[in-house]
Amino acid sequence: MPRKASRAAKQKALSKANRTRAAIIARAMEIAAGEGLAAITIGRLAKELRMSKSGLFVHFGSKEKLEAAVIARAADIFYGHVLEPAEDDIEAGIERVWTLCKYWLQFVERQTLPGGYFFTGALFVHARQDSSISLQVREVVGEWLKALRQAVDEARHRQEIRMPVDATRTAFELNSLLIGAQWSLLLDHRDHSHAHSAILAKLKSLATKRIPADAFDSELAWHHYLGTKHN
Amino acid sequence: MPRKASRAAKQKALSKANRTRAAIIARAMEIAAGEGLAAITIGRLAKELRMSKSGLFVHFGSKEKLEAAVIARAADIFYGHVLEPAEDDIEAGIERVWTLCKYWLQFVERQTLPGGYFFTGALFVHARQDSSISLQVREVVGEWLKALRQAVDEARHRQEIRMPVDATRTAFELNSLLIGAQWSLLLDHRDHSHAHSAILAKLKSLATKRIPADAFDSELAWHHYLGTKHN
Repeated sequence: MPRKASRAAKQKALSKANRTRAAIIARAMEIAAGEGLAAITIGRLAKELRMSKSGLFVHFGSKEKLEAAVIARAADIFYGHVLEPAEDDIEAGIERVWTLCKYWLQFVERQTLPGGYFFTGALFVHARQDSSISLQVREVVGEWLKALRQAVDEARHRQEIRMPVDATRTAFELNSLLIGAQWSLLLDHRDHSHAHSAILAKLKSLATKRIPADAFDSELAWHHYLGTKHN
Repeated sequence: MPRKASRAAKQKALSKANRTRAAIIARAMEIAAGEGLAAITIGRLAKELRMSKSGLFVHFGSKEKLEAAVIARAADIFYGHVLEPAEDDIEAGIERVWTLCKYWLQFVERQTLPGGYFFTGALFVHARQDSSISLQVREVVGEWLKALRQAVDEARHRQEIRMPVDATRTAFELNSLLIGAQWSLLLDHRDHSHAHSAILAKLKSLATKRIPADAFDSELAWHHYLGTKHN
Protein backbone atom coordinates (compact mmCIF):
# COMPACT_ATOMS: atom_id res chain seq x y z
CA MET A 1 0.00 0.00 0.00
CA PRO A 2 1.41 3.47 -0.89
CA ARG A 3 2.37 5.57 2.09
CA LYS A 4 -0.37 8.10 1.53
CA ALA A 5 -3.12 5.47 1.25
CA SER A 6 -1.72 3.68 4.28
CA ARG A 7 -1.83 6.91 6.25
CA ALA A 8 -5.41 7.58 5.12
CA ALA A 9 -6.44 4.05 6.12
CA LYS A 10 -4.78 4.47 9.52
CA GLN A 11 -6.48 7.84 9.97
CA LYS A 12 -9.83 6.29 9.11
CA ALA A 13 -9.34 3.43 11.55
CA LEU A 14 -8.25 5.90 14.21
CA SER A 15 -11.23 8.11 13.60
CA LYS A 16 -13.58 5.11 13.81
CA ALA A 17 -11.87 4.09 17.07
CA ASN A 18 -12.33 7.64 18.38
CA ARG A 19 -16.01 7.61 17.51
CA THR A 20 -16.49 4.25 19.23
CA ARG A 21 -14.57 5.51 22.25
CA ALA A 22 -16.74 8.64 22.39
CA ALA A 23 -19.92 6.54 22.15
CA ILE A 24 -18.75 4.31 25.01
CA ILE A 25 -17.90 7.32 27.18
CA ALA A 26 -21.23 9.00 26.37
CA ARG A 27 -23.26 5.95 27.41
CA ALA A 28 -21.11 5.31 30.49
CA MET A 29 -21.57 8.95 31.50
CA GLU A 30 -25.35 8.65 31.27
CA ILE A 31 -25.29 5.59 33.52
CA ALA A 32 -22.92 7.26 36.00
CA ALA A 33 -24.93 10.51 36.07
CA GLY A 34 -28.06 8.67 37.12
CA GLU A 35 -26.73 5.80 39.16
CA GLY A 36 -23.15 6.57 40.12
CA LEU A 37 -19.83 5.38 38.74
CA ALA A 38 -20.24 2.04 40.51
CA ALA A 39 -23.14 1.25 38.16
CA ILE A 40 -20.86 1.21 35.11
CA THR A 41 -19.92 -2.36 34.27
CA ILE A 42 -18.17 -3.54 31.14
CA GLY A 43 -20.85 -6.23 30.75
CA ARG A 44 -23.74 -3.78 30.86
CA LEU A 45 -22.05 -1.34 28.49
CA ALA A 46 -21.18 -4.10 26.02
CA LYS A 47 -24.79 -5.29 26.02
CA GLU A 48 -26.26 -1.81 25.63
CA LEU A 49 -23.81 -0.84 22.86
CA ARG A 50 -24.05 -4.27 21.18
CA MET A 51 -20.31 -4.82 21.39
CA SER A 52 -18.26 -7.70 22.72
CA LYS A 53 -16.75 -7.20 26.18
CA SER A 54 -13.25 -7.62 24.79
CA GLY A 55 -14.02 -5.23 21.91
CA LEU A 56 -15.13 -2.66 24.45
CA PHE A 57 -12.23 -3.31 26.79
CA VAL A 58 -9.63 -2.66 24.09
CA HIS A 59 -10.65 1.01 24.00
CA PHE A 60 -9.76 1.66 27.61
CA GLY A 61 -7.58 -1.06 29.04
CA SER A 62 -9.18 -0.93 32.47
CA LYS A 63 -12.42 0.05 34.19
CA GLU A 64 -10.49 2.73 36.13
CA LYS A 65 -9.37 4.38 32.88
CA LEU A 66 -12.93 4.32 31.58
CA GLU A 67 -14.14 5.95 34.82
CA ALA A 68 -11.42 8.62 34.54
CA ALA A 69 -12.50 9.34 30.94
CA VAL A 70 -16.14 9.59 32.05
CA ILE A 71 -15.33 12.10 34.80
CA ALA A 72 -13.12 14.12 32.43
CA ARG A 73 -15.96 14.28 29.88
CA ALA A 74 -18.50 15.27 32.57
CA ALA A 75 -16.06 17.95 33.80
CA ASP A 76 -15.74 19.38 30.26
CA ILE A 77 -19.53 19.63 30.03
CA PHE A 78 -19.77 21.27 33.46
CA TYR A 79 -17.00 23.80 32.72
CA GLY A 80 -18.48 24.49 29.27
CA HIS A 81 -21.96 25.21 30.64
CA VAL A 82 -21.12 27.01 33.86
CA LEU A 83 -17.58 28.33 34.39
CA GLU A 84 -16.51 29.27 30.87
CA PRO A 85 -19.58 31.26 29.73
CA ALA A 86 -19.67 33.14 33.06
CA GLU A 87 -15.94 33.93 32.95
CA ASP A 88 -15.61 34.59 29.20
CA ASP A 89 -18.81 36.50 28.44
CA ILE A 90 -19.69 38.32 31.66
CA GLU A 91 -17.73 41.25 33.04
CA ALA A 92 -16.15 40.71 36.45
CA GLY A 93 -18.19 42.08 39.34
CA ILE A 94 -21.36 41.19 41.18
CA GLU A 95 -22.99 40.28 37.84
CA ARG A 96 -20.47 37.46 37.35
CA VAL A 97 -21.14 36.20 40.87
CA TRP A 98 -24.86 36.02 40.09
CA THR A 99 -24.23 34.50 36.64
CA LEU A 100 -22.07 31.71 38.05
CA CYS A 101 -24.88 30.85 40.49
CA LYS A 102 -27.54 31.11 37.80
CA TYR A 103 -25.68 28.90 35.32
CA TRP A 104 -25.02 26.36 38.07
CA LEU A 105 -28.76 26.20 38.86
CA GLN A 106 -29.64 25.96 35.16
CA PHE A 107 -27.15 23.14 34.74
CA VAL A 108 -29.03 21.24 37.44
CA GLU A 109 -32.57 22.31 36.44
CA ARG A 110 -32.10 21.47 32.75
CA GLN A 111 -30.49 18.18 33.70
CA THR A 112 -27.54 18.84 31.42
CA LEU A 113 -26.04 15.83 33.14
CA PRO A 114 -29.19 13.98 34.19
CA GLY A 115 -29.42 12.63 37.73
CA GLY A 116 -27.92 14.06 40.86
CA TYR A 117 -24.61 12.40 40.49
CA PHE A 118 -22.25 14.87 38.81
CA PHE A 119 -20.51 16.41 40.67
CA THR A 120 -22.25 16.90 43.98
CA GLY A 121 -23.23 13.28 44.43
CA ALA A 122 -19.84 12.11 43.22
CA LEU A 123 -18.16 14.19 45.92
CA PHE A 124 -20.37 12.73 48.65
CA VAL A 125 -19.74 9.17 47.56
CA HIS A 126 -16.07 9.32 46.57
CA ALA A 127 -14.44 12.12 48.58
CA ARG A 128 -13.38 9.92 51.49
CA GLN A 129 -11.89 7.25 49.29
CA ASP A 130 -8.20 7.09 48.64
CA SER A 131 -8.46 6.79 44.87
CA SER A 132 -7.69 8.65 41.67
CA ILE A 133 -11.46 9.08 41.14
CA SER A 134 -11.69 10.90 44.47
CA LEU A 135 -8.82 13.22 43.49
CA GLN A 136 -10.31 13.89 40.07
CA VAL A 137 -13.77 14.68 41.49
CA ARG A 138 -12.35 16.94 44.20
CA GLU A 139 -10.32 18.77 41.58
CA VAL A 140 -13.41 19.63 39.49
CA VAL A 141 -15.40 20.67 42.54
CA GLY A 142 -12.44 22.67 43.84
CA GLU A 143 -12.20 24.55 40.51
CA TRP A 144 -15.85 25.54 40.84
CA LEU A 145 -15.46 26.83 44.39
CA LYS A 146 -12.29 28.73 43.41
CA ALA A 147 -14.11 30.42 40.51
CA LEU A 148 -16.94 31.47 42.80
CA ARG A 149 -14.52 32.84 45.43
CA GLN A 150 -12.53 34.73 42.78
CA ALA A 151 -15.71 36.25 41.36
CA VAL A 152 -16.69 37.50 44.83
CA ASP A 153 -13.18 38.85 45.35
CA GLU A 154 -13.21 40.69 42.01
CA ALA A 155 -16.59 42.19 42.86
CA ARG A 156 -15.06 43.45 46.12
CA HIS A 157 -12.17 45.05 44.27
CA ARG A 158 -14.60 46.71 41.86
CA GLN A 159 -16.44 48.05 44.88
CA GLU A 160 -19.67 46.28 44.01
CA ILE A 161 -19.40 44.02 47.08
CA ARG A 162 -18.41 45.62 50.40
CA MET A 163 -14.69 45.35 51.14
CA PRO A 164 -14.98 43.80 54.63
CA VAL A 165 -16.96 40.85 53.19
CA ASP A 166 -15.03 37.59 53.46
CA ALA A 167 -14.83 36.06 49.96
CA THR A 168 -14.26 32.49 51.22
CA ARG A 169 -17.20 32.60 53.58
CA THR A 170 -19.44 34.21 50.94
CA ALA A 171 -18.49 31.56 48.38
CA PHE A 172 -19.31 28.94 51.02
CA GLU A 173 -22.74 30.48 51.63
CA LEU A 174 -23.64 30.88 47.96
CA ASN A 175 -22.43 27.38 47.17
CA SER A 176 -24.49 26.05 50.10
CA LEU A 177 -27.66 27.60 48.66
CA LEU A 178 -26.94 25.97 45.30
CA ILE A 179 -26.20 22.54 46.75
CA GLY A 180 -29.26 22.93 49.00
CA ALA A 181 -31.37 23.72 45.93
CA GLN A 182 -30.17 20.59 44.15
CA TRP A 183 -30.87 18.60 47.32
CA SER A 184 -34.44 19.98 47.53
CA LEU A 185 -35.04 19.32 43.86
CA LEU A 186 -33.97 15.72 44.30
CA LEU A 187 -36.14 15.37 47.40
CA ASP A 188 -39.44 16.58 46.03
CA HIS A 189 -38.94 17.98 42.54
CA ARG A 190 -39.99 21.44 43.67
CA ASP A 191 -38.84 24.44 41.72
CA HIS A 192 -35.79 26.47 42.63
CA SER A 193 -37.48 29.75 43.44
CA HIS A 194 -36.30 29.56 47.05
CA ALA A 195 -32.70 29.29 45.88
CA HIS A 196 -32.99 32.14 43.36
CA SER A 197 -34.54 34.55 45.85
CA ALA A 198 -32.20 33.46 48.67
CA ILE A 199 -29.20 34.14 46.42
CA LEU A 200 -30.54 37.58 45.42
CA ALA A 201 -31.17 38.37 49.10
CA LYS A 202 -27.61 37.30 49.91
CA LEU A 203 -26.19 39.49 47.13
CA LYS A 204 -28.28 42.42 48.36
CA SER A 205 -26.77 42.04 51.83
CA LEU A 206 -23.26 42.11 50.31
CA ALA A 207 -23.60 44.87 47.72
CA THR A 208 -22.24 48.39 48.00
CA LYS A 209 -24.27 51.50 47.21
CA ARG A 210 -23.03 51.28 43.62
CA ILE A 211 -25.82 48.77 42.99
CA PRO A 212 -29.38 50.05 43.49
CA ALA A 213 -30.91 48.08 46.38
CA ASP A 214 -34.13 47.35 44.47
CA ALA A 215 -32.10 45.49 41.81
CA PHE A 216 -32.21 42.49 44.14
CA ASP A 217 -35.95 42.48 44.76
CA SER A 218 -36.64 39.72 42.22
CA GLU A 219 -35.13 38.09 39.15
CA LEU A 220 -37.19 40.47 37.02
CA ALA A 221 -35.82 43.47 38.91
CA TRP A 222 -32.31 42.11 38.49
CA HIS A 223 -32.70 41.70 34.74
CA HIS A 224 -34.12 45.19 34.55
CA TYR A 225 -31.05 46.50 36.40
CA LEU A 226 -28.71 44.64 34.04
CA GLY A 227 -30.62 46.05 31.08
CA THR A 228 -30.19 49.64 32.29
CA LYS A 229 -26.53 48.98 33.20
CA HIS A 230 -25.62 47.64 29.76
CA ASN A 231 -27.54 50.27 27.79
CA MET B 1 -37.50 -32.56 74.88
CA PRO B 2 -39.75 -30.93 77.52
CA ARG B 3 -41.67 -27.90 76.24
CA LYS B 4 -39.77 -25.45 78.40
CA ALA B 5 -36.34 -26.65 77.28
CA SER B 6 -37.49 -26.68 73.66
CA ARG B 7 -38.66 -23.09 73.98
CA ALA B 8 -35.34 -22.08 75.56
CA ALA B 9 -33.41 -23.80 72.76
CA LYS B 10 -35.54 -22.04 70.13
CA GLN B 11 -35.03 -18.71 71.91
CA LYS B 12 -31.29 -19.27 71.97
CA ALA B 13 -31.19 -20.11 68.26
CA LEU B 14 -33.31 -17.07 67.49
CA SER B 15 -31.12 -14.83 69.56
CA LYS B 16 -27.99 -16.15 67.82
CA ALA B 17 -29.66 -15.52 64.46
CA ASN B 18 -30.51 -11.98 65.56
CA ARG B 19 -26.95 -11.34 66.61
CA THR B 20 -25.62 -12.64 63.30
CA ARG B 21 -28.16 -10.53 61.44
CA ALA B 22 -27.14 -7.44 63.43
CA ALA B 23 -23.46 -8.11 62.70
CA ILE B 24 -24.15 -8.43 58.96
CA ILE B 25 -26.14 -5.18 58.94
CA ALA B 26 -23.46 -3.36 60.94
CA ARG B 27 -20.69 -4.35 58.52
CA ALA B 28 -22.86 -3.65 55.46
CA MET B 29 -23.70 -0.22 56.88
CA GLU B 30 -20.02 0.62 57.30
CA ILE B 31 -19.35 -0.30 53.69
CA ALA B 32 -22.36 1.66 52.45
CA ALA B 33 -21.53 4.74 54.55
CA GLY B 34 -18.11 5.02 52.97
CA GLU B 35 -18.66 3.69 49.48
CA GLY B 36 -22.40 3.69 48.79
CA LEU B 37 -24.97 0.92 48.80
CA ALA B 38 -23.72 -0.35 45.43
CA ALA B 39 -20.48 -1.40 47.15
CA ILE B 40 -22.28 -3.99 49.30
CA THR B 41 -21.93 -7.42 47.75
CA ILE B 42 -22.86 -10.73 49.35
CA GLY B 43 -19.43 -12.10 48.34
CA ARG B 44 -17.50 -9.29 50.03
CA LEU B 45 -19.62 -9.45 53.20
CA ALA B 46 -19.29 -13.23 53.42
CA LYS B 47 -15.51 -12.96 53.11
CA GLU B 48 -15.19 -10.15 55.66
CA LEU B 49 -17.50 -11.87 58.16
CA ARG B 50 -16.02 -15.33 57.48
CA MET B 51 -19.39 -16.80 56.59
CA SER B 52 -20.54 -18.79 53.60
CA LYS B 53 -22.49 -16.84 50.98
CA SER B 54 -25.51 -19.12 51.45
CA GLY B 55 -25.24 -18.80 55.25
CA LEU B 56 -25.28 -15.05 54.87
CA PHE B 57 -28.06 -15.06 52.31
CA VAL B 58 -30.43 -17.00 54.57
CA HIS B 59 -30.62 -14.02 56.95
CA PHE B 60 -32.06 -11.66 54.34
CA GLY B 61 -33.39 -13.53 51.35
CA SER B 62 -32.30 -10.87 48.86
CA LYS B 63 -29.77 -8.09 48.42
CA GLU B 64 -32.66 -5.58 48.27
CA LYS B 65 -33.87 -6.65 51.72
CA LEU B 66 -30.35 -6.35 53.11
CA GLU B 67 -30.09 -2.83 51.63
CA ALA B 68 -33.46 -1.89 53.15
CA ALA B 69 -32.30 -3.17 56.56
CA VAL B 70 -29.06 -1.18 56.23
CA ILE B 71 -30.93 2.08 55.45
CA ALA B 72 -33.39 1.43 58.30
CA ARG B 73 -30.48 0.93 60.72
CA ALA B 74 -28.72 4.07 59.47
CA ALA B 75 -31.99 6.02 59.83
CA ASP B 76 -32.36 4.83 63.46
CA ILE B 77 -28.86 6.08 64.21
CA PHE B 78 -29.52 9.42 62.50
CA TYR B 79 -32.84 9.95 64.30
CA GLY B 80 -31.31 8.87 67.61
CA HIS B 81 -28.40 11.31 67.34
CA VAL B 82 -30.12 14.31 65.78
CA LEU B 83 -33.92 14.46 65.77
CA GLU B 84 -34.84 12.70 68.99
CA PRO B 85 -32.47 14.46 71.42
CA ALA B 86 -33.35 17.87 69.92
CA GLU B 87 -37.09 17.20 70.08
CA ASP B 88 -37.22 15.30 73.40
CA ASP B 89 -34.72 17.27 75.50
CA ILE B 90 -34.83 20.82 74.15
CA GLU B 91 -37.76 23.17 74.59
CA ALA B 92 -39.46 24.32 71.40
CA GLY B 93 -38.28 27.71 70.15
CA ILE B 94 -35.22 29.18 68.50
CA GLU B 95 -33.02 27.04 70.78
CA ARG B 96 -34.44 23.88 69.20
CA VAL B 97 -33.79 25.26 65.71
CA TRP B 98 -30.15 25.85 66.65
CA THR B 99 -29.89 22.47 68.40
CA LEU B 100 -31.18 20.58 65.36
CA CYS B 101 -28.53 22.29 63.24
CA LYS B 102 -25.81 21.74 65.81
CA TYR B 103 -26.58 18.03 66.25
CA TRP B 104 -26.70 17.60 62.47
CA LEU B 105 -23.22 19.14 62.16
CA GLN B 106 -21.91 17.04 65.05
CA PHE B 107 -23.31 13.92 63.41
CA VAL B 108 -21.21 14.75 60.34
CA GLU B 109 -18.11 16.05 62.18
CA ARG B 110 -17.90 13.10 64.53
CA GLN B 111 -18.47 10.71 61.63
CA THR B 112 -21.19 8.90 63.52
CA LEU B 113 -21.85 7.25 60.18
CA PRO B 114 -18.40 7.53 58.59
CA GLY B 115 -18.15 8.72 54.99
CA GLY B 116 -20.38 11.17 53.20
CA TYR B 117 -22.94 8.68 52.12
CA PHE B 118 -25.73 8.71 54.70
CA PHE B 119 -28.06 10.42 53.97
CA THR B 120 -26.95 13.33 51.81
CA GLY B 121 -24.92 11.25 49.39
CA ALA B 122 -27.61 8.58 49.27
CA LEU B 123 -30.15 11.19 48.19
CA PHE B 124 -27.90 12.46 45.41
CA VAL B 125 -27.25 9.00 44.06
CA HIS B 126 -30.64 7.34 44.54
CA ALA B 127 -33.29 10.08 44.44
CA ARG B 128 -33.89 9.87 40.71
CA GLN B 129 -34.22 6.12 40.68
CA ASP B 130 -37.57 4.43 40.72
CA SER B 131 -36.80 2.04 43.54
CA SER B 132 -37.77 1.24 47.10
CA ILE B 133 -34.30 2.43 48.20
CA SER B 134 -35.03 5.82 46.67
CA LEU B 135 -38.37 6.04 48.51
CA GLN B 136 -36.80 4.96 51.80
CA VAL B 137 -33.94 7.49 51.53
CA ARG B 138 -36.30 10.32 50.57
CA GLU B 139 -38.52 9.45 53.53
CA VAL B 140 -35.65 9.81 56.03
CA VAL B 141 -34.43 13.04 54.45
CA GLY B 142 -38.02 14.35 54.30
CA GLU B 143 -38.46 13.65 58.04
CA TRP B 144 -35.38 15.74 58.76
CA LEU B 145 -36.55 18.71 56.69
CA LYS B 146 -40.02 18.50 58.24
CA ALA B 147 -38.54 18.55 61.77
CA LEU B 148 -36.45 21.62 60.90
CA ARG B 149 -39.46 23.43 59.37
CA GLN B 150 -41.64 22.60 62.39
CA ALA B 151 -38.97 23.85 64.76
CA VAL B 152 -38.83 27.17 62.88
CA ASP B 153 -42.62 27.37 62.90
CA GLU B 154 -42.81 26.71 66.64
CA ALA B 155 -40.20 29.40 67.25
CA ARG B 156 -42.41 31.81 65.25
CA HIS B 157 -45.43 30.94 67.37
CA ARG B 158 -43.40 31.46 70.54
CA GLN B 159 -42.43 34.87 69.16
CA GLU B 160 -38.73 34.07 69.13
CA ILE B 161 -38.61 34.18 65.32
CA ARG B 162 -40.41 37.03 63.56
CA MET B 163 -43.91 36.09 62.39
CA PRO B 164 -43.54 37.15 58.72
CA VAL B 165 -40.57 34.76 58.31
CA ASP B 166 -41.38 31.91 55.91
CA ALA B 167 -40.69 28.62 57.74
CA THR B 168 -40.24 26.58 54.55
CA ARG B 169 -37.75 29.02 53.06
CA THR B 170 -35.88 29.32 56.36
CA ALA B 171 -35.65 25.54 56.71
CA PHE B 172 -34.32 25.46 53.13
CA GLU B 173 -31.65 28.05 53.93
CA LEU B 174 -30.54 26.43 57.19
CA ASN B 175 -30.47 22.99 55.59
CA SER B 176 -28.43 24.43 52.70
CA LEU B 177 -25.77 25.72 55.11
CA LEU B 178 -25.57 22.26 56.71
CA ILE B 179 -25.33 20.39 53.43
CA GLY B 180 -22.83 23.00 52.22
CA ALA B 181 -20.75 22.41 55.35
CA GLN B 182 -20.70 18.66 54.76
CA TRP B 183 -19.74 19.32 51.13
CA SER B 184 -16.84 21.59 52.18
CA LEU B 185 -15.65 19.12 54.77
CA LEU B 186 -15.56 16.38 52.13
CA LEU B 187 -13.75 18.69 49.72
CA ASP B 188 -10.87 19.80 51.88
CA HIS B 189 -11.40 18.55 55.45
CA ARG B 190 -11.62 22.12 56.74
CA ASP B 191 -13.45 22.80 59.96
CA HIS B 192 -17.09 23.86 60.11
CA SER B 193 -16.64 27.28 61.64
CA HIS B 194 -18.09 28.93 58.51
CA ALA B 195 -21.26 26.88 58.88
CA HIS B 196 -21.61 27.55 62.62
CA SER B 197 -21.20 31.30 62.26
CA ALA B 198 -23.37 31.47 59.11
CA ILE B 199 -26.18 29.66 60.99
CA LEU B 200 -25.88 31.99 63.99
CA ALA B 201 -25.95 35.00 61.61
CA LYS B 202 -29.05 33.57 59.94
CA LEU B 203 -30.79 33.05 63.31
CA LYS B 204 -29.87 36.60 64.32
CA SER B 205 -31.56 37.93 61.19
CA LEU B 206 -34.71 35.94 62.04
CA ALA B 207 -34.99 36.52 65.79
CA THR B 208 -37.42 38.83 67.53
CA LYS B 209 -36.41 41.29 70.24
CA ARG B 210 -37.11 38.58 72.82
CA ILE B 211 -33.62 37.26 72.12
CA PRO B 212 -30.72 39.62 72.88
CA ALA B 213 -28.95 40.40 69.57
CA ASP B 214 -25.49 39.73 71.03
CA ALA B 215 -26.54 36.12 71.78
CA PHE B 216 -25.72 35.34 68.14
CA ASP B 217 -22.26 36.90 68.07
CA SER B 218 -20.47 33.57 68.49
CA GLU B 219 -21.03 30.06 69.78
CA LEU B 220 -19.62 31.16 73.12
CA ALA B 221 -22.06 34.08 73.28
CA TRP B 222 -24.91 31.71 72.38
CA HIS B 223 -23.99 29.29 75.17
CA HIS B 224 -23.74 32.19 77.58
CA TYR B 225 -27.25 33.30 76.57
CA LEU B 226 -28.61 29.76 77.05
CA GLY B 227 -26.95 29.63 80.47
CA THR B 228 -28.64 32.85 81.63
CA LYS B 229 -31.95 31.73 80.09
CA HIS B 230 -32.00 28.40 81.92
CA ASN B 231 -30.86 29.75 85.30
